[in-house]
Amino acid sequence: MNKSRLEAFSDGVLAIIITIMVLELRVPEESTWAALRHVAPTFLTYLLSFVYVGIYWNNHHHMLQLASKVNGTVLWANLHLLFWLSLFPFTTSWMDETGFDPVPTAVYGFDLLFAAVAYFLLQRTLIRGQGVDGPLARAIGRDWKGKLSPVLYLVGIAASFWQPLVGVGMFVVAALIWLVPDRRVERFVAEHGTAGR
Amino acid sequence: MNKSRLEAFSDGVLAIIITIMVLELRVPEESTWAALRHVAPTFLTYLLSFVYVGIYWNNHHHMLQLASKVNGTVLWANLHLLFWLSLFPFTTSWMDETGFDPVPTAVYGFDLLFAAVAYFLLQRTLIRGQGVDGPLARAIGRDWKGKLSPVLYLVGIAASFWQPLVGVGMFVVAALIWLVPDRRVERFVAEHGTAGR
Amino acid sequence: MNKSRLEAFSDGVLAIIITIMVLELRVPEESTWAALRHVAPTFLTYLLSFVYVGIYWNNHHHMLQLASKVNGTVLWANLHLLFWLSLFPFTTSWMDETGFDPVPTAVYGFDLLFAAVAYFLLQRTLIRGQGVDGPLARAIGRDWKGKLSPVLYLVGIAASFWQPLVGVGMFVVAALIWLVPDRRVERFVAEHGTAGR
Amino acid sequence: MNKSRLEAFSDGVLAIIITIMVLELRVPEESTWAALRHVAPTFLTYLLSFVYVGIYWNNHHHMLQLASKVNGTVLWANLHLLFWLSLFPFTTSWMDETGFDPVPTAVYGFDLLFAAVAYFLLQRTLIRGQGVDGPLARAIGRDWKGKLSPVLYLVGIAASFWQPLVGVGMFVVAALIWLVPDRRVERFVAEHGTAGR
Repeated sequence: MNKSRLEAFSDGVLAIIITIMVLELRVPEESTWAALRHVAPTFLTYLLSFVYVGIYWNNHHHMLQLASKVNGTVLWANLHLLFWLSLFPFTTSWMDETGFDPVPTAVYGFDLLFAAVAYFLLQRTLIRGQGVDGPLARAIGRDWKGKLSPVLYLVGIAASFWQPLVGVGMFVVAALIWLVPDRRVERFVAEHGTAGR
Repeated sequence: MNKSRLEAFSDGVLAIIITIMVLELRVPEESTWAALRHVAPTFLTYLLSFVYVGIYWNNHHHMLQLASKVNGTVLWANLHLLFWLSLFPFTTSWMDETGFDPVPTAVYGFDLLFAAVAYFLLQRTLIRGQGVDGPLARAIGRDWKGKLSPVLYLVGIAASFWQPLVGVGMFVVAALIWLVPDRRVERFVAEHGTAGR
Repeated sequence: MNKSRLEAFSDGVLAIIITIMVLELRVPEESTWAALRHVAPTFLTYLLSFVYVGIYWNNHHHMLQLASKVNGTVLWANLHLLFWLSLFPFTTSWMDETGFDPVPTAVYGFDLLFAAVAYFLLQRTLIRGQGVDGPLARAIGRDWKGKLSPVLYLVGIAASFWQPLVGVGMFVVAALIWLVPDRRVERFVAEHGTAGR
Repeated sequence: MNKSRLEAFSDGVLAIIITIMVLELRVPEESTWAALRHVAPTFLTYLLSFVYVGIYWNNHHHMLQLASKVNGTVLWANLHLLFWLSLFPFTTSWMDETGFDPVPTAVYGFDLLFAAVAYFLLQRTLIRGQGVDGPLARAIGRDWKGKLSPVLYLVGIAASFWQPLVGVGMFVVAALIWLVPDRRVERFVAEHGTAGR
């Protein structure tokens, strides 16, 4: 089954999620630098979620390049991932508007965690279609980033009930780890080529 | 005529519909689990509509794979389907905000029903271009799901005037029936290949 | 220059315009059929604009199939068209919320008119790249629909100051004329093939 | 790595940005020409940002045609550009709603400046992948437009604190310079062909 429509639909949903969040940036009523500084926390929160959607888009892009078979299960595993990502505008907004209160910060962390689990399930589904010595399994290798980040999310969630900003700090660290571009797939493609369309 | 733009436009509209509904999720003002639990019905209603748009996207994807000829009638049959789907944010929102009152729940059911009819008409239009022994007609076969779900919608609409939540239950059942991936088209493609671009 | 990105960008913008208008449909506060009937004028106005965007998408689709050369001028002629179409949510909303008052109805007509002019200019630009005996010029032929509809818009605008609903009637008639699928391009493609990618 | 998904995602984000801004156009409550004239400054501000997004889309389109290698660094350089462009609805809105006050006008200029810097960095990243005598570097040449516009933005920002409308005038001039279609890439493609997919 053709994977290009799966990519196009995912691109559309991710493009909308990433852009909708900017609507949360309420225009200040005053015309001063102080008013802009007042928006700064919202701005930085928006930036964090923007980076996360960017990370998911990048990883999705890389992963799909090595996928060949796309069946009904893959489509639903992908929609499951998009569902948790589509809640980002909501969870980001709640965390931001309550000024990083414990529960909303933890809920933001749960959204990150569920999205990570959904991504992992999508990856498993794609690998199952290729076998454990298929290109995707070999390119991903030990996947230490994929294993470390849920731990960071869980630590961040726990920390939120004690010091929410420490929780947010964990989420920022997890994002930074992913920001380092993932050379595994690129190196693999350079050596073996993609799975084709 | 090229079908890739029809797919791209439909993907765009469906991606927007599925993401716009999340905007209905109003951020709670309080920072408690109780406040989040308060959003739960809205969340579940949003999930139901998300799943329905996902089902339509999946089925659309499968159906178009076996379509070869795309003419002006197909374009309008497709826009007709997108019209009823684009009303989902409205009907979902009305049903949710009135707390599942009879009329809004029935109207939600009518939206499901009209979308199903529009999908059926699009399918007919595509089959007419191929003949009754064309790949699409043979892949679809008896189409018991396509015949059962309008019945469930009608029963759900009727039930809404008596016990709205029973009506919603019907809509959930109809969604679950579709969630089981439709192997007909996949099996057909595996055996005979797609209709090409 | 590759035309597929022009198509993809236009599809995206048109998909958003067509879906954004549904956001104008305010959810009624009451749960009665009467409340729904109250939304009916808005619903029908939305339907009219939905059909117009659909018409533009269809015609754009057909026209681009016969286009081969896409240069910078074509890109800007296309953006010019998208600009007037992107004002539809605004003009539709104003006309609807004022209950079809003269000025807003006329402004809606002007938006239709400017979009038609922009479409005509885009068509001219594409034909100029092919020569007057190129495939597009030959497929379009006398273009009586393209010549009649601006007249209908102008008559509708004038009528708006006298009886706005007569003006709206003109806009409906012009839409109906276009709803009849345009066989010219299809027939031409069937005989001569498309201009390729 | 395949560049078509990078293009599709960017097209989606740009399409949403350009269309979201129209939502800032608040429908007037009265039905008079005077009420419409009242919206005129907002309309013109929206037009300026529409043109800027159009310019970025056009230039992005041209530049990517000559790009061959797309790696992780390119994906992030592209997301960086999209980030600053996605702030346009916010900065446009603030400048407009405060009636072109000094600080919001300067902030609008900073958004233009940061987007220009991000575009420049994306261009550098792409050129680095090809070498300084690669097709992109040769097509761009001396890039006087790319060097002049940041100067105009800086002058405009400075002028905003003295006479905001002079600042806006600078931003309009910079847009007009880009509106003249960029023949460099087109000429280059006509002579040497694109970099392929």
